[in-house]
Amino acid sequence: MKTLQERIQQDGEVLSSQVLKVDAFLNHQVDPVLTMDIGQAFAQRFQGETITKVLTIEASGIHFAMATALALRVPFVYAKKKKAVTQEAVYSVPVHSFTRQETYQISVSQKYLSPDDQILIVDDFLATGAALLGLVELIQQAGARLVGVGAVIEKSFQPGRSLLEQAGVRVESLARIAEMSPGQITFIEEAEETVKEKVTSYVK
Amino acid sequence: MKTLQERIQQDGEVLSSQVLKVDAFLNHQVDPVLTMDIGQAFAQRFQGETITKVLTIEASGIHFAMATALALRVPFVYAKKKKAVTQEAVYSVPVHSFTRQETYQISVSQKYLSPDDQILIVDDFLATGAALLGLVELIQQAGARLVGVGAVIEKSFQPGRSLLEQAGVRVESLARIAEMSPGQITFIEEAEETVKEKVTSYVK
Repeated sequence: MKTLQERIQQDGEVLSSQVLKVDAFLNHQVDPVLTMDIGQAFAQRFQGETITKVLTIEASGIHFAMATALALRVPFVYAKKKKAVTQEAVYSVPVHSFTRQETYQISVSQKYLSPDDQILIVDDFLATGAALLGLVELIQQAGARLVGVGAVIEKSFQPGRSLLEQAGVRVESLARIAEMSPGQITFIEEAEETVKEKVTSYVK
Repeated sequence: MKTLQERIQQDGEVLSSQVLKVDAFLNHQVDPVLTMDIGQAFAQRFQGETITKVLTIEASGIHFAMATALALRVPFVYAKKKKAVTQEAVYSVPVHSFTRQETYQISVSQKYLSPDDQILIVDDFLATGAALLGLVELIQQAGARLVGVGAVIEKSFQPGRSLLEQAGVRVESLARIAEMSPGQITFIEEAEETVKEKVTSYVK
């Protein structure tokens, strides 16, 4: 997604070869128009698929799920990182955060994922894949079908995509970073044609 | 907001005189079309005001801030409940959650609130007002101007609105609950005319 890559180049901040800050426009202060475009882009990448629900995880995935769900005209659900105060039957899985060096429990009420659901997962970052693999497992617990994963930014030098693809999951990332260092970001360029072909072949 | 009240009557779940669950359509599973309408309604209530930014708190305020910011064509910022991993100068204030009986720190990077900002706060619930008063204090720390507070649902039998109004804050809630019990919700009816008058008188 060209406009997203340009925005990352312009307003992103590379702190090291591993850490990219995009909190000026994606995950602390947020540009709502860009977010809507991101939702449209995910809907287009998964065009031809039947999707009944979008799933993400609080907090930084919520606005992207919102934009994607609106484009698809389906509800979205966000997994929680804290137990609800009210007692509730939930699907639940532990997720290890490498950034924070802690393990937390993510959960979704059993009322909102069912075996009839066909689910698109979206999130802001795909890096180690830990959080996204956790969401995949929630969907398995519910017996729902996973359509694929959409990531706004992929750190392609980290193992997240490989781990998801090994699990048979289709991954679409809107900006794929091959490598980065302060002042320098190299994206993996995907021709628009390739994306369109991929979509076309997928709907056959 | 009539459609919101009807939806709360239809899909909300009153667990007691104090606890209303709306996680089927507002804050766990979310209806994105209703959320967009809510954003439009906030923009309309504060019509005539200059607003440079929408502020909310993670996680359940994010999609409402997104919809409101989109309607106003301004960025939104969500306050965080956890410290960022990267070192950062922040505005910060402790907030006590009566529901969870715990105190947590909310913060916003100093980069994203400035004395030039005119800010509309939005959140899903206005009850004790603790979280919203915390956001008001963040704005004071930044020296920004607070335009007002928009709440999707107000528990009018709790002191939040009074506390905010005592602090000189304009409050607009889209559904005001006078009282409730399992199977029964009574809203405070506001004539559409009253709302329009209020907006008109405010822009003089």
